[in-house]
Amino acid sequence: MPPSPHEPGPAPYLITREQSPPNLEFPFCHLGPRVTPTASFYVRSHFPTPRLSAGGWGLTVGGAVARPFRLDLAELRSLPARTLTATMECAGNGRVFLTPRRRGVAWELGAVGTAEWTGVPLSKVLERAGLLDSAREVVLEGADRGVLTDPLPTPGEIAYARSVPLDRALGDVLLAYGMNGEALTPNHGFPVRAVVPGWYGMASVKWLTSVQVTAEPFQGYFQTVDYAYWDTRDGLPPQLRPLGAMQLKAAVARPAPHEEVPCGTVYEVAGAAWAGEAAVERVEVSVDGGRTWADARFLDPPTPHVWRRWRLLWHTPTCPGRHTLVARATDARGRTQPASHDPARGGYMITHPLPVEVEVRERPR
Amino acid sequence: MPPSPHEPGPAPYLITREQSPPNLEFPFCHLGPRVTPTASFYVRSHFPTPRLSAGGWGLTVGGAVARPFRLDLAELRSLPARTLTATMECAGNGRVFLTPRRRGVAWELGAVGTAEWTGVPLSKVLERAGLLDSAREVVLEGADRGVLTDPLPTPGEIAYARSVPLDRALGDVLLAYGMNGEALTPNHGFPVRAVVPGWYGMASVKWLTSVQVTAEPFQGYFQTVDYAYWDTRDGLPPQLRPLGAMQLKAAVARPAPHEEVPCGTVYEVAGAAWAGEAAVERVEVSVDGGRTWADARFLDPPTPHVWRRWRLLWHTPTCPGRHTLVARATDARGRTQPASHDPARGGYMITHPLPVEVEVRERPR
Repeated sequence: MPPSPHEPGPAPYLITREQSPPNLEFPFCHLGPRVTPTASFYVRSHFPTPRLSAGGWGLTVGGAVARPFRLDLAELRSLPARTLTATMECAGNGRVFLTPRRRGVAWELGAVGTAEWTGVPLSKVLERAGLLDSAREVVLEGADRGVLTDPLPTPGEIAYARSVPLDRALGDVLLAYGMNGEALTPNHGFPVRAVVPGWYGMASVKWLTSVQVTAEPFQGYFQTVDYAYWDTRDGLPPQLRPLGAMQLKAAVARPAPHEEVPCGTVYEVAGAAWAGEAAVERVEVSVDGGRTWADARFLDPPTPHVWRRWRLLWHTPTCPGRHTLVARATDARGRTQPASHDPARGGYMITHPLPVEVEVRERPR
Repeated sequence: MPPSPHEPGPAPYLITREQSPPNLEFPFCHLGPRVTPTASFYVRSHFPTPRLSAGGWGLTVGGAVARPFRLDLAELRSLPARTLTATMECAGNGRVFLTPRRRGVAWELGAVGTAEWTGVPLSKVLERAGLLDSAREVVLEGADRGVLTDPLPTPGEIAYARSVPLDRALGDVLLAYGMNGEALTPNHGFPVRAVVPGWYGMASVKWLTSVQVTAEPFQGYFQTVDYAYWDTRDGLPPQLRPLGAMQLKAAVARPAPHEEVPCGTVYEVAGAAWAGEAAVERVEVSVDGGRTWADARFLDPPTPHVWRRWRLLWHTPTCPGRHTLVARATDARGRTQPASHDPARGGYMITHPLPVEVEVRERPR
């Protein structure tokens, strides 16, 4: 296997999409190891980064529970911990490729990453609180807060908050204090964040300070006005539903869009594919704009909630010209990506195959 | 009782707030009889007025019911009918007085009226369909439809639709085909509309074509993106809730804002008050900007869901000057109006007392 001369090393940096609050993107053409270094892990913020202290932090657990309580960081760290690997993607990843343009941060492809998360299962904390029979959802609230005006004004300052259904909350959701073997950084939610494996990143509330069990579906800003889509099933008029699981997607890291590729060489096309709550079973790549397809090989085994990096050797054309590459994935349930973006999804869940246009040129002598 | 020389007759016309779709307002200073003539009844439209024929109309009844069925107009008219009087107000009535300005139609005070509605109780139709145990809400859908882009884009064309909770649907909700003793006009929902007494007008779906029972709260455009407010109770972050019952309000019809009133005369201050699902018990009026208050007298008895017109004789000052009038109501449960507009309500439920500034001038000789 010839190593591609175009394969860059790991990129210990991020592209700034918004300076304040920090919205930072991994340059996806630098896709390297299976686990993304923390310094290359995308950052999505809605409000300025709260600067919390380990000593001052506490978690309130309440709502539809028998025994509300408060937990400090030392207590949380004393509970049995778990480490799991999970890929996390922003629900708006790929938005810059949509036409017409949609509101929101103009992510290219790199609002995605994979990390090893360490913490205490949320289920253990809920067990200690004792769920009432009426329990239906769990609202996770962060310390980050502020005022928003677009597209709808908030009632003054609000906190970032998101709910997960009870069955999911009792599954593998983590109250994480570690990322890639170290404490969380401020931008990633220090000292404690939620991690909801398989779901878009908006569910993994950072700077977590409150866990409240509710008897009714929660209708907060970040699951109605924002991070919601139009559900057109059931023969009813469209209904606003909160986004949840990441959708099946294969993304091409290399070549990058508009990259110049030499004629008559062997180029290693590289990318990753993920499927949220399912496993990726197959990735196919076309180097002729979708007319013919070849199976890519995987670098990683199928693992729930973790991406699989893939490669394909491309014998580049002998003559210069423009070429279009595209990749598509199939999951373990036999599902494939949609051919085009569903407008009911707005600026979210951008999972149709995105063509990559490259320029094949004479090799420099 | 000297009749006020300033009392105008009924106003068989409407002020245009939007030409297309038609959004038309009653000039509230012309407040006359208890029942508003249809030609003076405000019109709120979201999409162009559907032109439906009596013969072609049909109502689909389905969802969480044992026996879905379809009903034509002759069948609906053959069922036992009821006539009830109800005041209906647009949830954004008074919006033009808000600062900062809010999005939506800039209603002054006249997006309100009272009519006699004739039709078949929705409960009778639901009984015929046979509710399943899972039934929780009833979604009412109209024939009016279109595309909206602001503040959030719809997933293509959508129909106007709204839900009412089951207990309300089994109460006095009417499938109305008559208004003030005549067939509905096209702008008021011909041939059949819903009437939800005591609720803001957005619940009384016009051009009704579908009744669907659901097991879950409905999350359509017109009860999330639009016609919703931020509920900040329960110690949770703010949640988006659909608007429902009309809130307590006393409105001054005469004098009109900026009206010139003669010195040293007796002017009959006039208005109306309503309370949604409660009854209005008391209206007080201040002619000195809220320092002192006097009880107004009612022209109408307390009747559920119907406004009460009120009057107060004002001995106008002998010297010219600017004066501020204001009215406030108390309902049968002892509740009063809020002192100011709650920002969590956005551009809706504008029920704080609105001061009326008038110019007292020398009488013309």
